[in-house]
Amino acid sequence: MAIVIKGKEVADRLTEEALARVERLKSSGIQPALAILRVGNKPGDLAYERAAMKRAEKTGVDVRQVVLEEDVSQEKLLEEIDKLNRDESIHGVLIFRPLPEQIDEAFVCDQLAPEKDVDGITSGSMAGVFMGTEQGFPPCTAEACMAILDYYGIDLKGKKVTVMGRSLVIGKPAAMMAMKRNGTVTVLHSRTREDDFRRAGQNADVVITAMGRAKMVGPDLLGEDQVILDVGINEDENGDLCGDVDFAGAEPNAAMITPVPGGVGSVTTAILMDHVLAAAEKKGRV
Amino acid sequence: MAIVIKGKEVADRLTEEALARVERLKSSGIQPALAILRVGNKPGDLAYERAAMKRAEKTGVDVRQVVLEEDVSQEKLLEEIDKLNRDESIHGVLIFRPLPEQIDEAFVCDQLAPEKDVDGITSGSMAGVFMGTEQGFPPCTAEACMAILDYYGIDLKGKKVTVMGRSLVIGKPAAMMAMKRNGTVTVLHSRTREDDFRRAGQNADVVITAMGRAKMVGPDLLGEDQVILDVGINEDENGDLCGDVDFAGAEPNAAMITPVPGGVGSVTTAILMDHVLAAAEKKGRV
Repeated sequence: MAIVIKGKEVADRLTEEALARVERLKSSGIQPALAILRVGNKPGDLAYERAAMKRAEKTGVDVRQVVLEEDVSQEKLLEEIDKLNRDESIHGVLIFRPLPEQIDEAFVCDQLAPEKDVDGITSGSMAGVFMGTEQGFPPCTAEACMAILDYYGIDLKGKKVTVMGRSLVIGKPAAMMAMKRNGTVTVLHSRTREDDFRRAGQNADVVITAMGRAKMVGPDLLGEDQVILDVGINEDENGDLCGDVDFAGAEPNAAMITPVPGGVGSVTTAILMDHVLAAAEKKGRV
Repeated sequence: MAIVIKGKEVADRLTEEALARVERLKSSGIQPALAILRVGNKPGDLAYERAAMKRAEKTGVDVRQVVLEEDVSQEKLLEEIDKLNRDESIHGVLIFRPLPEQIDEAFVCDQLAPEKDVDGITSGSMAGVFMGTEQGFPPCTAEACMAILDYYGIDLKGKKVTVMGRSLVIGKPAAMMAMKRNGTVTVLHSRTREDDFRRAGQNADVVITAMGRAKMVGPDLLGEDQVILDVGINEDENGDLCGDVDFAGAEPNAAMITPVPGGVGSVTTAILMDHVLAAAEKKGRV
């Protein structure tokens, strides 16, 4: 029987630690504030936005919502970003992705002021993750995985870390962050041969799944006594939320495992607040 | 018996392809030019500089050398970089690293104009490698490995690629580039457990070594029929140049292997010229 990791517990600890920082900021006359820029009304975006606002309230961070129509022009979107860049009262900006087709996403993301890039979408933040420096902020979800490991005192040094998925938002940054923590990292993806996938899954000490495919990672792709961090957010055949991991099948052999929902996702919003506070502290030199 | 990869053959092919581009540039009134900025007189830098100048001559690229004293101040170094940034006749700048202790290397490297960053040392180029986009230029040595694979028609899709070393100059970018080519990548380093190191070395289809440790990769860390790209440049016990791979021990079991000297290093300068031409073409819209 595995320890089922409670994301909320990790998030609440992070929030508790954050409260003193918020107090310090406020006593310096700074009210930390996050802007959430959303284009359209995707259910996943709305769910994350609700969770972020709840976490912001617990933490004492103000949130400003900016909502644009699905068919917004790139010009109008850039205008909003520019406004947020210049707004002294906003310390961090979260922009939901993917952006609609008419938008040049990479270009638009890079127009965000680097110091407000609390979810690691600008080139500067990407370079920071790649180089392992403190430049910018890493994507919140990848960092949430590391925060969970920290909470449970799991040191990656000399551990085999298998990352399933190579996206820019999770797989790649999680791989770089695990490597920085001295893990021996293997990245699997859709073009990996089936037997290589299985072997690397089975032999890992820590598995991070970010494929975005409901319950695809079952016991056949996993080993014994592993730490399994499931970053996938999918719908199962009944329309219920589920991860990339077949939880029922994987849990009995695992050492620790995150559920979906209630696992990594719950920690992500706490990391987002941590980044907003760091941005506010840096700006205010607090 | 393995095929011993001749770097010069690959480089000469690249140079041959480059000649037509140089002609096109010249007929548009553009003389492609590279500046080499060197601090001090390290033997390794001097050797690479000589090789680069020879390759530049073959290609038809002008080279300007800028040499600064080992104890140069950061201010003076930045001044030189600024001059090169503003010099319309220079299309690419190579800066030897590591820079001396008194210099904040990351900061200095980031002052180079992104469009002249032909060896991938700015944040923008790093982000490009990480994101797998065309932004900036990847470090020449990592790209040289890919050029060798291309020359020999080796497709990484579904192949297991083991990268030994996680430096910013070779290990990390080579890993990202192999991943982009659909390889299943594992990155080993000094903190990897011995048995994990051995197993990942033995099980790989392609091995890229960039540890900087003379002949450390022997038959025990390798398998059968592998493609071995040795990026190490070290001195052996007799003071002779050698790679990270124990060539004599590894060659009999390999499918293909690069020697040192005469392997990857020989291709690197050709990639550098390719980048200078690309920078000149972009600037001149040729």
